[in-house]
Amino acid sequence: MQNYAVDAGHLQAYEQKLFEAVGLTSTDASAVAELLVHADLRNVRSHGVLRTVPYVEKIRQGGASKTASYPVVSETANTAVIDAQGGLGALAGEKAVALARKKAANGLIGMVVVRNSNHFGMGGHWALKLAGEDMIGFACSNTDLTMGPPGCREPFMGNNPFAFAFSAGEAYPEVCVDMATSGVAFGKCKDLAKRGQAIPHGWMLDKDGNDTTELSECFMMVPMAGHKGFGIAFIVELFAALLSGGVLSPDINNQDLADTPELSSQCFACFNIQAFRDLKEFQDSAAAYIDRLHQLPMKEGAGAAKYPGEIEYGCKQQNQREGVVLPETLADELTALGRELGADGGFLKERPTDRR
Amino acid sequence: MQNYAVDAGHLQAYEQKLFEAVGLTSTDASAVAELLVHADLRNVRSHGVLRTVPYVEKIRQGGASKTASYPVVSETANTAVIDAQGGLGALAGEKAVALARKKAANGLIGMVVVRNSNHFGMGGHWALKLAGEDMIGFACSNTDLTMGPPGCREPFMGNNPFAFAFSAGEAYPEVCVDMATSGVAFGKCKDLAKRGQAIPHGWMLDKDGNDTTELSECFMMVPMAGHKGFGIAFIVELFAALLSGGVLSPDINNQDLADTPELSSQCFACFNIQAFRDLKEFQDSAAAYIDRLHQLPMKEGAGAAKYPGEIEYGCKQQNQREGVVLPETLADELTALGRELGADGGFLKERPTDRR
Repeated sequence: MQNYAVDAGHLQAYEQKLFEAVGLTSTDASAVAELLVHADLRNVRSHGVLRTVPYVEKIRQGGASKTASYPVVSETANTAVIDAQGGLGALAGEKAVALARKKAANGLIGMVVVRNSNHFGMGGHWALKLAGEDMIGFACSNTDLTMGPPGCREPFMGNNPFAFAFSAGEAYPEVCVDMATSGVAFGKCKDLAKRGQAIPHGWMLDKDGNDTTELSECFMMVPMAGHKGFGIAFIVELFAALLSGGVLSPDINNQDLADTPELSSQCFACFNIQAFRDLKEFQDSAAAYIDRLHQLPMKEGAGAAKYPGEIEYGCKQQNQREGVVLPETLADELTALGRELGADGGFLKERPTDRR
Repeated sequence: MQNYAVDAGHLQAYEQKLFEAVGLTSTDASAVAELLVHADLRNVRSHGVLRTVPYVEKIRQGGASKTASYPVVSETANTAVIDAQGGLGALAGEKAVALARKKAANGLIGMVVVRNSNHFGMGGHWALKLAGEDMIGFACSNTDLTMGPPGCREPFMGNNPFAFAFSAGEAYPEVCVDMATSGVAFGKCKDLAKRGQAIPHGWMLDKDGNDTTELSECFMMVPMAGHKGFGIAFIVELFAALLSGGVLSPDINNQDLADTPELSSQCFACFNIQAFRDLKEFQDSAAAYIDRLHQLPMKEGAGAAKYPGEIEYGCKQQNQREGVVLPETLADELTALGRELGADGGFLKERPTDRR
């Protein structure tokens, strides 16, 4: 299939127009566009602009409320609880980030939890925003049902992703650990099936809770590292839903329902580095640590060891220079949506590329 | 081998005497004894009283300083940094827990980091202490070199354990996620080798970074879930060593050196639940969540699904009633140490048991 390189700035402006056209304010539409394009910049394409149509449909059909005001329902000097009122995860996230950073100013810690929200996109987007130059950022979300404890025959929680991020100064401005607590993403299974390959053992479970290598039989994901991943997903549930008083994972709605809010919960936190240590000292020390990691002796062919998020940051730099890569089907889908909503997507297919 | 059931209270008093005999104050000796016996109560025996002789030797030979005063070198309303001055992890932990809980009083968040410390024992001990009835407790530590990023031929960090804990009220007072970031504990490999069984593929690496099933060739551990576990171990390093200005993992000393402090770093945090939500509501909601987990349909023979820490809490209840189980070799070792230090360990072998 033909791919196209698209300037990230143009793409983001186009996305913003689409979300304005379905009723978001310019500021809100910009925040959603930024979230989606940022994922494509980091090559986390599963959370990129391929979500445009589902997000737009969710807004149109009422699954993501346009009238939510994201009120702060309680707060302390360090903390706050936001009720997203079935609005967009991206907008709850914007409000939570600003509040958490404010509460962590002057060398403190800030934590904001959100209930009754929707899909919050790439966790690393939030962790990086929370982190800025001077903090450690943390974000997590519970998600709709996909996995459970070892031995289960029914799922009990989502793959509950979480992310941490910080800047190690100019050399390494975006260190970011971002993962779901499942062993692998379901997208990988679909990709293998498309290529006619079996799903490896230990990735997916069928309706009886048994290992399966067939896409059609996949019913649940296996938590990463078995009971350890289950434990971490449980902690995500704790910080997101149990602290916020949100809906617990077994009762969350499927994120694909366009007319129904997912009612997921999220947690956003900032740990101000200067609460503990001089910022420059911290960054120099972190950068020296990464320098040493890069010099670690590696197996032949393994390449240099990489810090968490290094690959994604490299993609972001390249994609900012050369454009993000959209496959033809996605470019067509976005063009058609633009046609419907009065935005000109002609630029999307201007630059064919061999990049993948 | 014959096992013995030993009353936990008697064992703790005996341990306290041993640590007093090598120069700790009564309060300090009691804290170390509590840490070790708590691990045996939860059947986390790798961190229990089998560490008595190594801890005593470390104190005697200077690897764990008796003169450390654990000063708070900096602090804010929410945070503090403690320099453990090469003292005992148990005593740095006691001070950090008290301080973190104080800073989290009145509905806030408290985080205390420690540098230049030693082995801090079972992470769950600290998370549970930090949690008490009303908070979420978090503790983590970097540790001496055992693992690295995927593809490495040399280790770069320890198996950096972390733990979270909270109380879900009377029904479930000790919910506790406690894990190392390696796929499996090295103790499991040693146990299999003792039984003449091969180590499963994917657990351990040899000096060339290749998978090995031979105990004699084990050189490094594989992080849990590969790059995901490496990322989590990196975050532990961040919160423990990078925030505290402590020694980074590649430079930490082997914990088995009796005359040299490990210089590990730790992080202890309290998230006051009432900062977010009414405590009773939180506990009721958490308990209801666990009730539902217990009712999850399971595969035949899998038993009911368990919340994190349920097995260990069950052990603790049984061991509090029936005594902790010590194998004969350990009972003999502790008796001999007591003879040397003027404590009567006769009670250790009073109650033979068939329990394992």
